[in-house]
Amino acid sequence: MTPLRKNFGSDNVGPVSPAIFRAMEEANSGSVPSYGNDPWTHRLETVVRERFECPSALVFPVATGTAANSLALSALVPPFGAVYCDGTAHIETDECGAPEFFTGGAKLLALPSRTGKVSPEALVRHVEGGRALGVHKSKPAALSVTQATEWGTVYALEELRALADATTHLGLAVHLDGARFANAMVTLGCTPAEATWKAGIDVMSLGATKNGAMAAEAVIFFRPELAEEFARRRKRAGHLWSKARFLSAQLLAYLDDDLWLANARQANAAATRLADGIERMEGGRLLFPVQANEVFALLPDAAIARLQAEGYLFYPWYMPNGDNAPRGASPVRLVESCDLEPQDVDGFLQAAG
Amino acid sequence: MTPLRKNFGSDNVGPVSPAIFRAMEEANSGSVPSYGNDPWTHRLETVVRERFECPSALVFPVATGTAANSLALSALVPPFGAVYCDGTAHIETDECGAPEFFTGGAKLLALPSRTGKVSPEALVRHVEGGRALGVHKSKPAALSVTQATEWGTVYALEELRALADATTHLGLAVHLDGARFANAMVTLGCTPAEATWKAGIDVMSLGATKNGAMAAEAVIFFRPELAEEFARRRKRAGHLWSKARFLSAQLLAYLDDDLWLANARQANAAATRLADGIERMEGGRLLFPVQANEVFALLPDAAIARLQAEGYLFYPWYMPNGDNAPRGASPVRLVESCDLEPQDVDGFLQAAG
Amino acid sequence: MTPLRKNFGSDNVGPVSPAIFRAMEEANSGSVPSYGNDPWTHRLETVVRERFECPSALVFPVATGTAANSLALSALVPPFGAVYCDGTAHIETDECGAPEFFTGGAKLLALPSRTGKVSPEALVRHVEGGRALGVHKSKPAALSVTQATEWGTVYALEELRALADATTHLGLAVHLDGARFANAMVTLGCTPAEATWKAGIDVMSLGATKNGAMAAEAVIFFRPELAEEFARRRKRAGHLWSKARFLSAQLLAYLDDDLWLANARQANAAATRLADGIERMEGGRLLFPVQANEVFALLPDAAIARLQAEGYLFYPWYMPNGDNAPRGASPVRLVESCDLEPQDVDGFLQAAG
Amino acid sequence: MTPLRKNFGSDNVGPVSPAIFRAMEEANSGSVPSYGNDPWTHRLETVVRERFECPSALVFPVATGTAANSLALSALVPPFGAVYCDGTAHIETDECGAPEFFTGGAKLLALPSRTGKVSPEALVRHVEGGRALGVHKSKPAALSVTQATEWGTVYALEELRALADATTHLGLAVHLDGARFANAMVTLGCTPAEATWKAGIDVMSLGATKNGAMAAEAVIFFRPELAEEFARRRKRAGHLWSKARFLSAQLLAYLDDDLWLANARQANAAATRLADGIERMEGGRLLFPVQANEVFALLPDAAIARLQAEGYLFYPWYMPNGDNAPRGASPVRLVESCDLEPQDVDGFLQAAG
Repeated sequence: MTPLRKNFGSDNVGPVSPAIFRAMEEANSGSVPSYGNDPWTHRLETVVRERFECPSALVFPVATGTAANSLALSALVPPFGAVYCDGTAHIETDECGAPEFFTGGAKLLALPSRTGKVSPEALVRHVEGGRALGVHKSKPAALSVTQATEWGTVYALEELRALADATTHLGLAVHLDGARFANAMVTLGCTPAEATWKAGIDVMSLGATKNGAMAAEAVIFFRPELAEEFARRRKRAGHLWSKARFLSAQLLAYLDDDLWLANARQANAAATRLADGIERMEGGRLLFPVQANEVFALLPDAAIARLQAEGYLFYPWYMPNGDNAPRGASPVRLVESCDLEPQDVDGFLQAAG
Repeated sequence: MTPLRKNFGSDNVGPVSPAIFRAMEEANSGSVPSYGNDPWTHRLETVVRERFECPSALVFPVATGTAANSLALSALVPPFGAVYCDGTAHIETDECGAPEFFTGGAKLLALPSRTGKVSPEALVRHVEGGRALGVHKSKPAALSVTQATEWGTVYALEELRALADATTHLGLAVHLDGARFANAMVTLGCTPAEATWKAGIDVMSLGATKNGAMAAEAVIFFRPELAEEFARRRKRAGHLWSKARFLSAQLLAYLDDDLWLANARQANAAATRLADGIERMEGGRLLFPVQANEVFALLPDAAIARLQAEGYLFYPWYMPNGDNAPRGASPVRLVESCDLEPQDVDGFLQAAG
Repeated sequence: MTPLRKNFGSDNVGPVSPAIFRAMEEANSGSVPSYGNDPWTHRLETVVRERFECPSALVFPVATGTAANSLALSALVPPFGAVYCDGTAHIETDECGAPEFFTGGAKLLALPSRTGKVSPEALVRHVEGGRALGVHKSKPAALSVTQATEWGTVYALEELRALADATTHLGLAVHLDGARFANAMVTLGCTPAEATWKAGIDVMSLGATKNGAMAAEAVIFFRPELAEEFARRRKRAGHLWSKARFLSAQLLAYLDDDLWLANARQANAAATRLADGIERMEGGRLLFPVQANEVFALLPDAAIARLQAEGYLFYPWYMPNGDNAPRGASPVRLVESCDLEPQDVDGFLQAAG
Repeated sequence: MTPLRKNFGSDNVGPVSPAIFRAMEEANSGSVPSYGNDPWTHRLETVVRERFECPSALVFPVATGTAANSLALSALVPPFGAVYCDGTAHIETDECGAPEFFTGGAKLLALPSRTGKVSPEALVRHVEGGRALGVHKSKPAALSVTQATEWGTVYALEELRALADATTHLGLAVHLDGARFANAMVTLGCTPAEATWKAGIDVMSLGATKNGAMAAEAVIFFRPELAEEFARRRKRAGHLWSKARFLSAQLLAYLDDDLWLANARQANAAATRLADGIERMEGGRLLFPVQANEVFALLPDAAIARLQAEGYLFYPWYMPNGDNAPRGASPVRLVESCDLEPQDVDGFLQAAG
């Protein structure tokens, strides 16, 4: 019997899904042209176009989410431009300045929010204010949204569409950081097209690594004219694999048979089960609705101590909006990997107990 | 029976060595800390230090050679600095400006040569000439040498040491592009330490991808003070894998049991066998001594036509030093992968007729 | 008789002080070595060292404040580093991403404040929080303070020293944006040394353009080891004048006979006179104490209308901290050039009614 | 009586032309809008459009030639692009990597030549060769030509037009480094339009500093669509003067009354007089035809010694194309400033003996 999984620290600590590993193994046969001129990479384009109902979409596999986000942004914003995002966005807080590096020094303008979601009103106000100052301000060029958000919530389609109205009005391109896009899809229950280009997304980073792949993300352009010369950007960043088939094979296995949704469903279910348990826990409180595979919660300090004593791993977090935690409890982040089983969650709740 | 291998176009078209694939599979079990805080990555450091007899060496795995070279250079040269290299160097000719990107705009100063090797005299002359012009010139900061060279030859140890004398005198750091370092090691027959830090190399890109890995190269610093903050450089370039164990596992399998040398020996042997055959071929002529796994040769045009008709893949090349090819023959590059068998080479020679 | 000066929009709209123009004219004679090897530039170094009581100071004249600030920061912070500053800092809000450009993509981390001054506590909290996240965060490398601040106030020496304690503890270098440093000096009444390196400043941008020069600022390093290779940085940014004597001559005239203080005193006096008038004005209110040559004030909308009708120029501004303006009044910024006379201020107040 | 001018080292060692100084003085009066919204800058646009017969031309004054060249190139070439130029080009050899900095790391590809001029055949060969390698090569994006060249020669109009045919065919934008454009104009005797946009130039750096200005160059776009957002590029490089009128006033005086041509005529005449003298000198030999204000010549070593003993300043140079100097003579560069009089040249020749 598998021992209980106790790592709730991140969704990148777990193993690779067997189907993805198998696909890499099957790709490991014979000589094929390098640098993406291989059958796997070609088929990946076909599959993505079908899944997203976008016959002109262009797909560029890379190995990391930071590369996917930063390369995508570099295609949208000039060095003297600005990218708007939420103050919690991964590109702003967790990528060591990669967007600035890849864009040649563009400016990230992080909008504060209570929710981790960009509000159309704040966006319009900031962009118009900036534009009024002309050359003294970086040129407003793009919006980046994160779906699911960094607080584990999901933009509703109408929220995305309201942002799309604003960005169309403002003339901004829109990037979606989809490191946990599959988790959001499970919650939205709509088609991938509805959740992306039909809602105004121009280019997305489709994450797979956090959801069962080894190291694979896809930059997908829904407006191919934005991808002009993207291949060169990827090459000169060292993100073009010579044996590209092994990246594409991962992504194919991810999309084939809807493994991406199956994995995300499992992770989201674990999160929901955990959230339910925390709500029933004396002194436990959710900080945000749980809509993907992350739980942000207040736990009693005693529960935290018991969990740590039992070997559970997770990160202490911070209260949103500068609030103070109530006495005797502390905020934590609990991330659910796609290999978590119900008994793993129950084990956590029992240990917290 | 395996059909004959007919791809002599590159050493990145072949499959992954079984032992390397197996190592990734074995690494695929359970939760481990991400971003390199895993047992595989820790053991890799130990193994590299042992193999290179350098207890203070620091090792940073990345997925591509372009990333390894450019990141390494960015640690050696300021944005206003210059990197000297041979005119044929991969960093100068094949990386789409990646070194310029990673260094923030440093200048590559490519020295012409007849041999693909940097000469100490030319280096000293150029560096001293540049320094005399002060701030109008980029600051001479580093030398990058390629071992084996882009013409398939190998710097002798005394050649490396003569360069080391020059760079010590000039105050330049030295980078080694070791995309085919294992192939050079087989030819040199010395220890890894003798071929690197004992010969003045400060940091190297140790290639594995062209020699049997899926996507793995190691940046190895022999002077750890140069690696200060290298971890941040790698992260902000999107080259830090969250599931880093799968990069390190490849490199461990590569070094364990000397797979790197075994693979290189097989590739070099194929190259030598091919070179011998070409020398015996009427109208065939080697352009350079074959010391690694690349053959640059003149082949009769009729032979080239026959090979292409039989499905052999390889690139037409150019004559070194602006020479003209003799009438009726053309230069080609023939690269030997580490999975080539003697019969594959014989098949080629027979088809060339 | 000179007509009334009516431009309160900026301190860069006015003419060049006669003494500065005369100095350029005197420099315009005969052949002298270019690129700063001229007597004016040499004497400038001597004069700065004396004025600032810092015999090892290094001085680099440039033509604009944006260049001075960004070049200075590029010497303090690596491309993967972070610069902390107040949310109102010119480098953050008015330089079109120049610091990001010159540093190769470093991150500006703007701390919110009610006052336009960085608080040591906020700085320590942010830096320590960032460092805890390791390579995922840009490396905290420098603090930039603005003196006088963007709200027209002046850091007291003890405030600067408290920041110096924090930055020493945190290992940050400190830059001072002194676009209006002379205005602050007049208010502080201390020595230049006390206001800079004795208060922990490592490098400053000493502004002259806003205070009577044509186009001249000096980057002054109080720790010469930080200026290593700064000359190359300036050259490759196109900020090394071939006829450098004309930059140095401006700065010499600025410092000789304490013209910088005389000009600043005149501008500050105009600001104080204006502030006094506004405080007496029905419905007028100062938003900040007036300690330099900028007045931020609420004016009755009717007064604003009368001023505009009379041809007075100034910018509508915004309330600090997201406050709302009271009904019937609006915030404005009134900047006093160094050529403003008392009657110009009185004219303004009279027109405001 | 003025003492003899003895500085032949550069054309940036001399004083500012009186008319240019006077123009700055006249501009120094009253308050005018800053950052280029002033009458001088507006009139400059009109004057340039007239002089160049190009009603849609856009003009951006900056203070240095390095800034003009690098900013112009940054508008033509993406970070992953390449600029072709002659191996002697100032952008390649004398700007400390500024083009790489401003373009965000684009690659300069310097073509060797015997003449300092780019040949259309070499350009086509290199560009087509590079394009064949796809993403592994920087994208060929622009050609930069220098007029007058770095060897003091001048491209004939038909030479420029042949290059224009090549660049049109290749899809490259064309930049002209016109640091000594006025000197070339005097030799060509054609209209400015014929020497620029009618000959395929898209953007030029019009130099004034070497030809009588204090610090002023104009970036002129003949295809305004290339200048989109150029104003932001200039601002974020710190090259937008707040008191922009003083840059524009210099350039206006330079073009008004054809001062630029008068100055260049004087410098060219000095060069021609000097060249004639050298040709008559025993052991003297010109290395290139003298078509502008630079003389590259072999002088007897004894003559060089005599000149130096008399206080003449000039730089030892190098032989073109790696040739060796004949025994007893050495190559020198002699640059003629626009304030040189015939007697200054005669003094030089007499001292040389």
